[in-house]
Amino acid sequence: ARPRQLEVADYYQGIMQGDRGILARAITLVESNHPKHAVMAQALLQELLPHTGGAMRVGITGVPGAGKSTFIESLGCRLCERGHKVAVLAVDPSSTVTRGSILGDKTRMEQLTRQPNAFIRPSPSGGTLGGVARKSRETMLLCEAAGYDIILVETVGVGQSEVTVRSMVDFFLLVVLTGAGDELQGMKKGVMELADLIAVNKADGDNRLRALAARADYERILHYIRPATEGWRTQSVTCSAMTGDGIDALWATVESFFAQVRASGAFATRRQNQVLAWMRSMVEEHLYRSFFDHPAVTACLPRIEQEVASGTLVTTRAVQELLSAYEGANSSKA
Amino acid sequence: ARPRQLEVADYYQGIMQGDRGILARAITLVESNHPKHAVMAQALLQELLPHTGGAMRVGITGVPGAGKSTFIESLGCRLCERGHKVAVLAVDPSSTVTRGSILGDKTRMEQLTRQPNAFIRPSPSGGTLGGVARKSRETMLLCEAAGYDIILVETVGVGQSEVTVRSMVDFFLLVVLTGAGDELQGMKKGVMELADLIAVNKADGDNRLRALAARADYERILHYIRPATEGWRTQSVTCSAMTGDGIDALWATVESFFAQVRASGAFATRRQNQVLAWMRSMVEEHLYRSFFDHPAVTACLPRIEQEVASGTLVTTRAVQELLSAYEGANSSKA
Repeated sequence: ARPRQLEVADYYQGIMQGDRGILARAITLVESNHPKHAVMAQALLQELLPHTGGAMRVGITGVPGAGKSTFIESLGCRLCERGHKVAVLAVDPSSTVTRGSILGDKTRMEQLTRQPNAFIRPSPSGGTLGGVARKSRETMLLCEAAGYDIILVETVGVGQSEVTVRSMVDFFLLVVLTGAGDELQGMKKGVMELADLIAVNKADGDNRLRALAARADYERILHYIRPATEGWRTQSVTCSAMTGDGIDALWATVESFFAQVRASGAFATRRQNQVLAWMRSMVEEHLYRSFFDHPAVTACLPRIEQEVASGTLVTTRAVQELLSAYEGANSSKA
Repeated sequence: ARPRQLEVADYYQGIMQGDRGILARAITLVESNHPKHAVMAQALLQELLPHTGGAMRVGITGVPGAGKSTFIESLGCRLCERGHKVAVLAVDPSSTVTRGSILGDKTRMEQLTRQPNAFIRPSPSGGTLGGVARKSRETMLLCEAAGYDIILVETVGVGQSEVTVRSMVDFFLLVVLTGAGDELQGMKKGVMELADLIAVNKADGDNRLRALAARADYERILHYIRPATEGWRTQSVTCSAMTGDGIDALWATVESFFAQVRASGAFATRRQNQVLAWMRSMVEEHLYRSFFDHPAVTACLPRIEQEVASGTLVTTRAVQELLSAYEGANSSKA
């Protein structure tokens, strides 16, 4: 039988009781592009808001092949065994194209999936990165209200996705492999500057010495990079998601980070700045879309762009023409 | 006697004749924030537009103490002696505060100032970087119409100024000193990734060997950085602005860059993309200012921001409130 339609109060109650089925359906509500669902989702989030914000929000990225999934599974299982409730989310703006390139295949995290205290949710297929990011942020709030005290947000190195995830988490972890030089070359520029910790994975067996050497390389490079978090020195560790070596020590580093930034106030400041920046970027995105999708603008934009590009129209004047077209249409509408 | 007021036609004629006094006054017109001047400036630029775009636009930045001024003077004098007409502009968004920290003190480029084929203009004091950038771009067009075939745009490492200058030039040069490692640490992140060429300056006397070593360091680092221009490998050279050593070779590299990107079409593509991106960013700036300076928004923004920051108002709902306030006020106005 198809489950009955839920009201906002049903969602609220289910989530507050930690009901995973209801949580999953609430996330679907938040991810929906239907206007009626959006209204319900906002009402629900507004009610849940006092119960959110309590989790450690940890972003995780890494070069392809670095073993992010195995790493998350290994870390997630340990955290569950210690009594944490762990939600694993993903932000992958390419997932509409690739049909869930990360976390889509749940079999990849078989052990973690079996943990009663773990909740795994693949990336919303939201189209734009802005859309995916909005849905992921709101999903994070739902998970926090449902009692998850650690949120791991996985992302792939696509477009701006790391910057987006960095802007929604407290701590950002970069998983890499041995051979810092070669690997850095393939790594997206600027990713190291987002990281609070670099984990050289696969430090096991024959690879252990190379991993230690890679770590030394990273430490050297980190000298020349401004830390991502004020008052915290970005550092590197080695670990093996396969054997579990170094995972506990890694998490101890994460915990010392949280202790430190909570004490210094950097934690609260970052959270506030994040939510305000998010609000502004949503406003800006709306303004931008309202303008460039407006019929009065789309009607003249191609001609104006062509004239500007070919050097027959001065830019400042082109801007005036576009703004007049937009504002004229808007005032005549009213 | 105070010079008589000029009409657009007077400016046009003076500039087309290469009259430096009129050019200087036209730049003042472009830099003015007075609405009447803005109308005249736009009319003038529109008329001059067919005569612009012919110059090699070269951005120059460097760490403090790298000797940018001496370098520009040395390079500028050589170019003038070869028959070029060289305009030296500056983009310094801090100049309102520091009262012209770069190029303000003309005595710093005494020799170049005496060259009849050189035109030196300090940074406009425009307040915002956007304002400074708009004025500098338009000044560049005026100089091109006046026959200057090389535009050197100097900038300091303040805020986003390098990114802004990169977005208005064809070629970007980074002037550095010996000791790549230490220096990189002090250098703003991401600057190397904007550069088409890195010049290790002060490669003279006792310092020559260290400069060669620094160059080798930079070459190694450049391996891991994506080039700023498609199809051009970012490279490094040594030079001495004081003795003149390496300056000719450096310019030969710049010329080979231009030959290559003109032939490949990358030059034309970049110019088109630059002017279209500039147009869009001006539109965006206008939209954001209209919104965030609107009385209906400023009236409720502090309260909403406070509620969002303290976690009592959901972000998506806050955005809706702000947009309703703005759109309500706008439609009732009409």
